[in-house]
Amino acid sequence: MSTATKSYAAQTATSPLAPHTIERREPRVSDVAIEILYCGVCHSDLHQARDEWHFSTFPVVPGHEIVGRVTAVGSAVTKFKQGDLAAVGCLVDSCRTCSSCARDLEQYCLNGATQTYNTPDKISGGSTYGGYSESIVVDEAFVLHVPTNLDLPAVAPLLCAGITTYSPLKHWGVKAGQKVGIVGLGGLGHMGVKFAHAFGAHTVVITTSKSKIEDALRLGADEVILSTDPEQMARHAGTFDFLLDCVSADHDINAYLNLLAVDGTITLVGAPENPMPVAAFPLIMGRRSFAGSGIGGLKETQEMLDFCSQHNIVSDIEMIDIDQINDAYERLLKSDVKYRFVIDIASLKK
Amino acid sequence: MSTATKSYAAQTATSPLAPHTIERREPRVSDVAIEILYCGVCHSDLHQARDEWHFSTFPVVPGHEIVGRVTAVGSAVTKFKQGDLAAVGCLVDSCRTCSSCARDLEQYCLNGATQTYNTPDKISGGSTYGGYSESIVVDEAFVLHVPTNLDLPAVAPLLCAGITTYSPLKHWGVKAGQKVGIVGLGGLGHMGVKFAHAFGAHTVVITTSKSKIEDALRLGADEVILSTDPEQMARHAGTFDFLLDCVSADHDINAYLNLLAVDGTITLVGAPENPMPVAAFPLIMGRRSFAGSGIGGLKETQEMLDFCSQHNIVSDIEMIDIDQINDAYERLLKSDVKYRFVIDIASLKK
Repeated sequence: MSTATKSYAAQTATSPLAPHTIERREPRVSDVAIEILYCGVCHSDLHQARDEWHFSTFPVVPGHEIVGRVTAVGSAVTKFKQGDLAAVGCLVDSCRTCSSCARDLEQYCLNGATQTYNTPDKISGGSTYGGYSESIVVDEAFVLHVPTNLDLPAVAPLLCAGITTYSPLKHWGVKAGQKVGIVGLGGLGHMGVKFAHAFGAHTVVITTSKSKIEDALRLGADEVILSTDPEQMARHAGTFDFLLDCVSADHDINAYLNLLAVDGTITLVGAPENPMPVAAFPLIMGRRSFAGSGIGGLKETQEMLDFCSQHNIVSDIEMIDIDQINDAYERLLKSDVKYRFVIDIASLKK
Repeated sequence: MSTATKSYAAQTATSPLAPHTIERREPRVSDVAIEILYCGVCHSDLHQARDEWHFSTFPVVPGHEIVGRVTAVGSAVTKFKQGDLAAVGCLVDSCRTCSSCARDLEQYCLNGATQTYNTPDKISGGSTYGGYSESIVVDEAFVLHVPTNLDLPAVAPLLCAGITTYSPLKHWGVKAGQKVGIVGLGGLGHMGVKFAHAFGAHTVVITTSKSKIEDALRLGADEVILSTDPEQMARHAGTFDFLLDCVSADHDINAYLNLLAVDGTITLVGAPENPMPVAAFPLIMGRRSFAGSGIGGLKETQEMLDFCSQHNIVSDIEMIDIDQINDAYERLLKSDVKYRFVIDIASLKK
């Protein structure tokens, strides 16, 4: 038994997203069925809808920033009940037994976590379908509790943009007394600023755009550096404890390595398409590190949501109807969004 | 007052090293005067004698792997007395006040440490001259005690090749129970193997040369991977806690990033001339780090020498007379040395 479910899907790498019907399974014993209310739009949705990462299986129903309400639960479910708010992020399953899963790092599951969409479903077969849809059914271990004091649509982007920036700031120990830079002020970067500021760090936005200075300060930055100004970059050389690199476009990583203090780390969370040339001397002369980080595990994602509840943090969003998604993708490509599109899924049910 | 001192120097970037007389200062109150007995030959000697790093001031007297015997001490010297064995490594001074110096990381002195050769001497003026010479005069804070139970010529390379590999293995916490790879088996790599083995790690040499397998095992490796064999590389993917990259030639860093386990680090101690392209996904998918490390501070260098004394570790060397140095440089370029040339400075005094 399964339920016919309205969605928006890309049928090929070159076709626009359009209405499409998928089947959702009946809840198994440990499953939670969720009526989706809002779904954030991540740049990786676009990459996969257009097969730019070359592993898409069509149709692709994107969406991994999902918030909604529980409509049914399996007989063994203990953490959720009908009517609860619930969220689903980038993962819907993992092996739960490998050393990464044992460390609550399901995102690095050694047997391959099941992504929320465009991934083979190891139990049901077929491909997973994401949040550009009316509903979703997910094992409760991969469902998150949503704080009730936050603006629900603006919570959706926390499930990817939020945890992607929160996790590395926590892992590399960002705290008060440190100077921390957020490179790039987009969907990821604007969350990075909010978290670094909330952690008490002296927070600096590093951007190519003069037009973003005002917004950076409003979002919580203490300072802004224009990376296009060599004098500003030189003045801050060797002073940063940590840099979070949120830029997905190609950029010169060495310019940022030189901003790091001794033992500083720059962590990449954007995913530029082309390999980045890294010079040996900036790494060696200061024991600096160039690292990467991907989303976060389930435990940490819940911790992040609870932190947001306590500190009243949500994403800055622009709400759209589902039939605006193709235009939204074009605007994403121009970085023309402040700072995350969120789809009102009510528009899909009309 | 100063003392005329025999040395070997490069007079230009293209001239071979040849006899040359330098002046050594009379010991100041905190100085130690050392009769040099042996000096190791580091690849950076060649780089600077030939101005390949474009900051050489000629004449260049190379050499920063210096061991010898104390001949005189200044009135305020407390750590050394005439007749003691003593060593000098890559540094002869630093500001001693910055945050790096305060953390015993003189090699990362924010005001610029004074290298043992080819660096402006901030006190005396002129350039510093290294260990291809009869004697040297150094502030006692930058002079090290030499264990008496080790073969003295084979101690010399510990001052650069030794500390350069010991320091990152310590900093990144290499220990028993870990799987640690040493990439490249040359002057640096052969010391990396000895230290990783002594720290109790499962030590793996990763080399392009079948001919080095036997030596790698003799030096303490538990396993050897031929990096030219894709099958061997694939079999070890995702399994290393730490990799020490001792390769100075251009090489594909992504192949090694893929060998790292979740949260693994590869630390570069060789200095390839060209920037290394680094792909985003191997960093992000496993929270891996690509880091660099340069020599070590004075305190850690002494700790390393004491560790070598306890564990009976020295370098594998090939002794040469000073008049063989130009031939030795040519052999260095072909990696034709097992594993470090050491100059018998007695040959300079003839």
